[in-house]
Formats: sequence, structure tokens, C-alpha cells
Amino acid sequence: MKLATLNNGTPDGQLVVLSADGSRCAPANGIAATLQAALAQWSDAEPALRALEARLDAGLAPEAQPFDAASALAPLPRAWQWLDGSAFQAHGDLMSTVFGMDKHSYDTRPLMYQGLSDRFLPGQADVPLPSEADGIDFEGEFGVITDTVPMGVSPAEAARHIRLVVLINDWSLRRIAPIEMQTGFGWIQAKPASAIAPIAVTPDELGAGWADNRVQLRLQVDWNGQRFGLAHAGQMAFSFSQLVAHAAYSRELVAGTVIGSGTVSNPTYREVGSSCIAERRAIEMLDEGAARTSYMHFGDRVRMEALHEDGRPAPFGLIDQQVVAAAGSAAAPKVA
Amino acid sequence: MKLATLNNGTPDGQLVVLSADGSRCAPANGIAATLQAALAQWSDAEPALRALEARLDAGLAPEAQPFDAASALAPLPRAWQWLDGSAFQAHGDLMSTVFGMDKHSYDTRPLMYQGLSDRFLPGQADVPLPSEADGIDFEGEFGVITDTVPMGVSPAEAARHIRLVVLINDWSLRRIAPIEMQTGFGWIQAKPASAIAPIAVTPDELGAGWADNRVQLRLQVDWNGQRFGLAHAGQMAFSFSQLVAHAAYSRELVAGTVIGSGTVSNPTYREVGSSCIAERRAIEMLDEGAARTSYMHFGDRVRMEALHEDGRPAPFGLIDQQVVAAAGSAAAPKVA
Repeated sequence: MKLATLNNGTPDGQLVVLSADGSRCAPANGIAATLQAALAQWSDAEPALRALEARLDAGLAPEAQPFDAASALAPLPRAWQWLDGSAFQAHGDLMSTVFGMDKHSYDTRPLMYQGLSDRFLPGQADVPLPSEADGIDFEGEFGVITDTVPMGVSPAEAARHIRLVVLINDWSLRRIAPIEMQTGFGWIQAKPASAIAPIAVTPDELGAGWADNRVQLRLQVDWNGQRFGLAHAGQMAFSFSQLVAHAAYSRELVAGTVIGSGTVSNPTYREVGSSCIAERRAIEMLDEGAARTSYMHFGDRVRMEALHEDGRPAPFGLIDQQVVAAAGSAAAPKVA
Repeated sequence: MKLATLNNGTPDGQLVVLSADGSRCAPANGIAATLQAALAQWSDAEPALRALEARLDAGLAPEAQPFDAASALAPLPRAWQWLDGSAFQAHGDLMSTVFGMDKHSYDTRPLMYQGLSDRFLPGQADVPLPSEADGIDFEGEFGVITDTVPMGVSPAEAARHIRLVVLINDWSLRRIAPIEMQTGFGWIQAKPASAIAPIAVTPDELGAGWADNRVQLRLQVDWNGQRFGLAHAGQMAFSFSQLVAHAAYSRELVAGTVIGSGTVSNPTYREVGSSCIAERRAIEMLDEGAARTSYMHFGDRVRMEALHEDGRPAPFGLIDQQVVAAAGSAAAPKVA
């Protein structure tokens, strides 16, 4: 099942169910007005949403309308909780290189921080940021959305609370990141709002693209029209169910919690490329002695698309964003 | 003005305005059903809430009822964002001692992490936690609640967005904290839900207790009926307005953002005591070579009250909480 959220002027938007081919959608009003509401009562909402999907596919939903991914909001336009892991060891090792820090052990505990969740940017809207000097970087990753997860669940129990899978662009400001990391407190200024591709999918919708509680897809990343990465998302050192259980050790997870994989990365990064610029800079440091690729400039675009092994697009829709100067920043257009 | 939230069965509760003496309250229904709603439109809501307070004090609010602080929810039972600073250098230096880490410089950038905000516990309700072995600790601190803060504000501009002041108990699991800190990612497992004392106040309500964008009050902390601390909250290395501006560098702050001071602490900790157990353990390590005070046990209570210089209670009401074993934890009562 494929879900999306349309802009109806409210902070949480209008939940819609998509047709199997993704071309049409129907509002889920009678079931749950918003995705947050659906997740809060998922066991009731899911069968009703699937029934609506069936009516839509059978041409029996008179309220159907064309679905326009480009104007959709993030599937969850705001969430009570966003916990982002960093489960790809190849990424972690490269970031230790670029930041000049010790490598993290991936044997025992996953890496995870709590990030800004009061808004997720639409997958295809501009990204306002304060300064190019901050080292603006994209980070392509996948995430899962849970319903309510009791405190203290096992990974096996946690797996049953994974309700939706999403594609995320976790925007990062790399020149601030190591300064904040060194405090041990995690990131505030280095982690502005993330974006989510327009369509959230139930795991079954991915077919072989979801197995072992991991996303078995490639993430195709293009920066200003140039291919930048095509890494495989199946190589997480910790599965999503392990990440959910880790997060729930001392807290019940609120329905609508988003848990991220961290930047998709493979040890074969010299062949498959990267899902963020910082990784390429780290590879340049390793191979050439110094980073030569710059971070993003205002006006730059990044495009992300998830692909099955055979090259078919997975049904998340696109991330396609342009970085712009935030209102009030030194580089913002001045009002005459 | 003093605001509180009553339990009406909804996640955000019922906003009430208190009488000047704190004995009675009136629902703010016609103005804003919840504190979150009031903060989202504060410039309209504040004068209406103050007018309701005036009617209540004049005996002209027929909907008035007795106010029972013990059964109140947190003033903001859940928030879109909780950003906790650590602005007391005496605390930071002692925590570096207890965790065996380098001391942080308080000259340039404040310390801040993003914490769990999908629920704030009531100030006088039990605190369910998974294990005594985690090093259960209270942390007494103050916080401010903002309305919408634009990205990139200066500290002077940020000060104008500080709408309410609250008293917070930021629960911490100290045996997990340094493990998570060493990753640089901040805390997930080490920071379960925090509690907020029942009454949120506008800064003017504190009189001389609010100056220089800091809380000029003492925080009296008792652990199992024994005096534990009476530190002064005025000694923040960074003011709340500086903390708000720091947080807003690369993000607009959503209305209802809670910004914390970090544990209240003074360099005279040997005389005034501490607002958390970890500090006392650090002092013991410095003075006696080893920590001898244990962390909390299930059944322990902590009580916190803010006091003016002359000993009068400030109007936040009490934090008075008992730690209990979470359902499902090894120490939880078994169902026969």
C-alpha cells in the first residue's frame, strides 16, 4: 500500500491512499484524516486503508483524483519523534576520516541521535539554509515509521511495529557537525530539517526490496544532473528492528516515530559512489591526500530515487530539491 | 500569569488560567483549548488569557474551579521540540570528572542536545524506568517555552520569543550516558521522558526572579526527604536568549519549543549542594577519591521547589516524583 499527504493548508495535511499504479489517489477522510491519526490506531486503520485502495483500483472510488507527487507534502509533515541511526559501517568509517575522529565499533550498539521532527520538508520543495560556508550536504537514507512501540521490546517484537518505509534526505551542515559532535551532545545547528520523498509504503509493497528488516534497494543519487551514487541499502550493520528496539530501551515510542538508517553506503564506495558529499571528500582524502569536491552552493540540486535490483523504480517517488538562501541570511535576495 | 493543564483524557489536556493566589483556575476554552494552541497564536492568546485571569481574580468567572496541582499534567504534556542546554559551568566541569572526559569550554558555544518531547511527565506522577542498574538520576533545571522563532534571530530578538518559564526534572540514566556521549551523537537511551512542574509562568510573574534572561531563583532539591541541594539558577554561562538564538541558527523554532538550562549548579557546590546525584558523586571523587553515594532505587522520591531569595516559593508548584520499575522490566511486579 502506498500513502501520501496532500497540502490542505493544515500542518498535518490530508492523508491519501494511492492506486496500485500510483497515478490516482483518494482521501482517507472517513478512516483517518492524517497519517499521524492512522498510525495512532494502525490496526484499525490499515485494513480500512487497504479496502479503500482496492476500491480505488477497481474504479469504485468516486472521490479519486490524479496524484501529483511534485506537490505532495512529506508523508508525515511533522512527527513527534525522529531518531536517526548510522547503521552503515562504510559511512561511519569514512566520516571518522573526514572529521578526524576515532572509528566507531559496529559490534555492540547502534549509533543514533534525536533530530528535528517538528517539520519534514516535502521531497520536491526548496531547502532554505543560512550559509554556503557551513558545508551544505545531502544524505540519502531510508527510514521506517512505527506505530506505538512499548518500552523494552525485543528486536523481534519491534519488527512487528514497523508499519511504513520512507526515503529521506537528511540535510547536514558539515562544517558545524564535528564541532557539535565533540561535545558529545549530538547535533542541533548541523542538522536542519530533513525531507521525505512523497510516498510512504508498507513493507510488503517493496516485495523483495524488503527483507531481513532492511531495505534491499539501491539508492540512485544525482547532484546537479551528474550521477553521484548508486549504493545498496541492504548492508546495514544493524537492522531496522534492532534500531527500533535500541530506541525503545527506556522510552515507549510514540506512534509516528521515524527511525532512520543513516546514509546509505557500501565498502565498494569507489565503484558505487556515495549518498553524501562528505563521503566523497573522505575518499579523496584517503586516495589523493586532500578533499577537492566542494560542498553545495545555493542553486544546486540533488535528486534521489530508490531502485530495485533490476532497475525498476521503487514506489517512493523522487527527492528532487534545490538549496536556497534562507530569508534573512546574508546571501538571501534583498528586498529593494 | 500562571498557566496549567488539566487531564481531560486528550494527549494535550485542557489549558487553564490560575488565579493570582493559585487556588483556583478557569478553563481557557474560548481562547485556546491547549497550551500548544495558545503558543501557536500567542500575541492573540496572551491578552485574552490575562483578561480571563483578571475576571477570575475579580470573582467574575463562573466557570472557576479549585486548582489541584497534584493531579495536573505537565503544562505542555507533549511538545514538538525539546532542546536542553547545559549552561552551568560548575555542572559541566563536574560531569567531565564523573565521566572521565575533557572539560568543555564555556567561552564560545553553548552545549545543547535534542531530547524526547512526545511526552512530558506530570510533575507529581510516578516515573517508570527499566533498571536500577542504569544509574537513575534526577536533574533539576529551569526551561523556557517559546512561540515561533524565525531562523537566524539574534539573542536580543530571541528574548522577545520567550513566553513562559517552567521547572523541569530531566531524568537521566548515568551508566548509559557516557557510552552514548562518546559516540558524539548525544543521548537516546540515557534520556527517558522528563517531567515539568505543574505551573508554567510568564516571566513577569517571577518579578525579580527573572532578570538578564535568567531565572534568579534557588532550586531546593530533596531526595527521600533529605535536603540535597539549594543552588542558585542565575549563574548560567549563556542566557536563555542566547540558548534560543543558538538553537535557531539553522531552523525556525516551532511554537511550543522548550529550551532547558541544564542542571542548576554553582561553583560553591560544597556549600549549596547539587541538583543531581552525579554531581555529588563527582565531588566525592574529587574530595575522597571515589564516589560513595549510589544512584536512585525504585521507590525513591525526589522533590524540587523553586524559591525566591527571601525563601518564598516561586509559583511553579512542586516536582515530587517516585521512581518505579517499568512494566515488563525485570524488577516490575509480576502478574500472578
